[in-house]
Amino acid sequence: MTETAAWIAVDWGTSNLRAWAMDAGNAPVAEASSGAGMNTLARDGFEPALLDLVGPWLRPDGVTTIIACGMVGARQGWIEAPYVVTPCVPLHAEAMVRAPAADPRLAVQIIPGVSQAAPPDVMRGEETQIAGFLAGRPRFDGVLCLPGTHTKWVHVSAGEIVSFATFMTGEVFALLAGSSVLRHSVGSDEWSEADFAEAVEDAMARPEKFASRLFVLRAASLLDNLRPERARARLSGLLIGLELAGSKPYWLGREVVLIGDAALARTYRSGLALSGLEAEPQDATAMTLDGLVAARSALAG
Amino acid sequence: MTETAAWIAVDWGTSNLRAWAMDAGNAPVAEASSGAGMNTLARDGFEPALLDLVGPWLRPDGVTTIIACGMVGARQGWIEAPYVVTPCVPLHAEAMVRAPAADPRLAVQIIPGVSQAAPPDVMRGEETQIAGFLAGRPRFDGVLCLPGTHTKWVHVSAGEIVSFATFMTGEVFALLAGSSVLRHSVGSDEWSEADFAEAVEDAMARPEKFASRLFVLRAASLLDNLRPERARARLSGLLIGLELAGSKPYWLGREVVLIGDAALARTYRSGLALSGLEAEPQDATAMTLDGLVAARSALAG
Repeated sequence: MTETAAWIAVDWGTSNLRAWAMDAGNAPVAEASSGAGMNTLARDGFEPALLDLVGPWLRPDGVTTIIACGMVGARQGWIEAPYVVTPCVPLHAEAMVRAPAADPRLAVQIIPGVSQAAPPDVMRGEETQIAGFLAGRPRFDGVLCLPGTHTKWVHVSAGEIVSFATFMTGEVFALLAGSSVLRHSVGSDEWSEADFAEAVEDAMARPEKFASRLFVLRAASLLDNLRPERARARLSGLLIGLELAGSKPYWLGREVVLIGDAALARTYRSGLALSGLEAEPQDATAMTLDGLVAARSALAG
Repeated sequence: MTETAAWIAVDWGTSNLRAWAMDAGNAPVAEASSGAGMNTLARDGFEPALLDLVGPWLRPDGVTTIIACGMVGARQGWIEAPYVVTPCVPLHAEAMVRAPAADPRLAVQIIPGVSQAAPPDVMRGEETQIAGFLAGRPRFDGVLCLPGTHTKWVHVSAGEIVSFATFMTGEVFALLAGSSVLRHSVGSDEWSEADFAEAVEDAMARPEKFASRLFVLRAASLLDNLRPERARARLSGLLIGLELAGSKPYWLGREVVLIGDAALARTYRSGLALSGLEAEPQDATAMTLDGLVAARSALAG
């Protein structure tokens, strides 16, 4: 039999919706997810998508608090939760926005994203992971790297987000590997660490060669039968090397923590290790949950 | 009434097929085109696609010579015309490959592409434009830039292709503007020359910032209402600036001729002008036709 939840934690991104039923001690007791990401929903589709997923956890005759982070708070989301501007702490109980819901059992609070004025930049969802990390390490002074479709480099000091920069590395990789002429040359399985390392160092040393190094992958596949897993590792290395060259002011001489998907974090870790930097990996889902718990506590406090 | 052709010139690319009926004096007397590019055809589809287009120009009771350049000679084309390796003259009558045709009226000759061993690189079609240019300027010593989906920079000396480099700039622009998160920020009309110039100079000065400068376009559109035509010009400038930084060993201190689509060539010309270089534009279609004429003459000679 399904138990009701003390409250519900929700990570609502562009392409996925993920929810946890939480007990009174802030431990997850059930988990559910669906493909009902922000991109797939019109404004009136958010409440039904949420009810589909968490309906069984709601108290039948009361109100359940739901704390959500991510693109659900974007202009095209359920309701816009306006950005908080850097420098700022990652969580602002007073800036959370209540989403309009017809079902009286729902009290949905959306965590706002964070923006930066110059250079212009935005995040939605990562601020919650940062808050989760800082809940366990409140005195951390260093850099968080959150690799993904749009990788974030975040300078954190005295509990605040000081500045950050977003690199479109993951999205460019997906487009090149899946939709460009390189799709004929790049495999989807296996990996060549040596090719990755060579490409990272190459791109860091000569970032301006990026667009021609890309085509070399295609030509090497046609002329020299470059194996698909080697081409894939090189493509990844070129992109991550270019990013590491550009993000150097963030990571050079700093303590760096990687918060992201395990495989992707390993790749960034390998890339940083080539510059002698040992980055500390942290589990992204755990940080998200810790951040949602911190938001719940801030709201209750 | 349709006249028969002395011979037929064909430019057969990845996504288009274009043909000209030529008279005995090597002047085009009729032109036709279709969307039957190499990408859309199986191996047995090439002959019917060609007959659809040029059938009316064929001598009814004789053989018509057809000279074709482009991806029709790729491994996935009608028949593979193996690459000639640099350094080499752009045209090799003896390396042309006769395509197998069931219709006895067709004598189809395919011009081979050119490859480079190190760094690995390939071209198919551009060698014919280069031959066309050199037919009129046989003593040219300098650099040809052929902007397009895969822009080529070609060092030409003593009638030979000495070396070349391909940049995937056009394809990356199309993917980012059409399929990435930037599609929400980038317009399709109008242009801002000032934004283009600023982005070119920015990318040339700090090529390693490429992936973060991309996301700034998105953030500036969300936070500062950056207008779509300005975002488009900046995206183009970032990509062309990155390419100009990487292709500097080709163009610095050289005579540069641009062979390409008029609008795209103008964009490259503006970018190069920011570094004080005045590139000479040449019409791409004229160069293709001149090259096919040169191939026909080489074959007949």
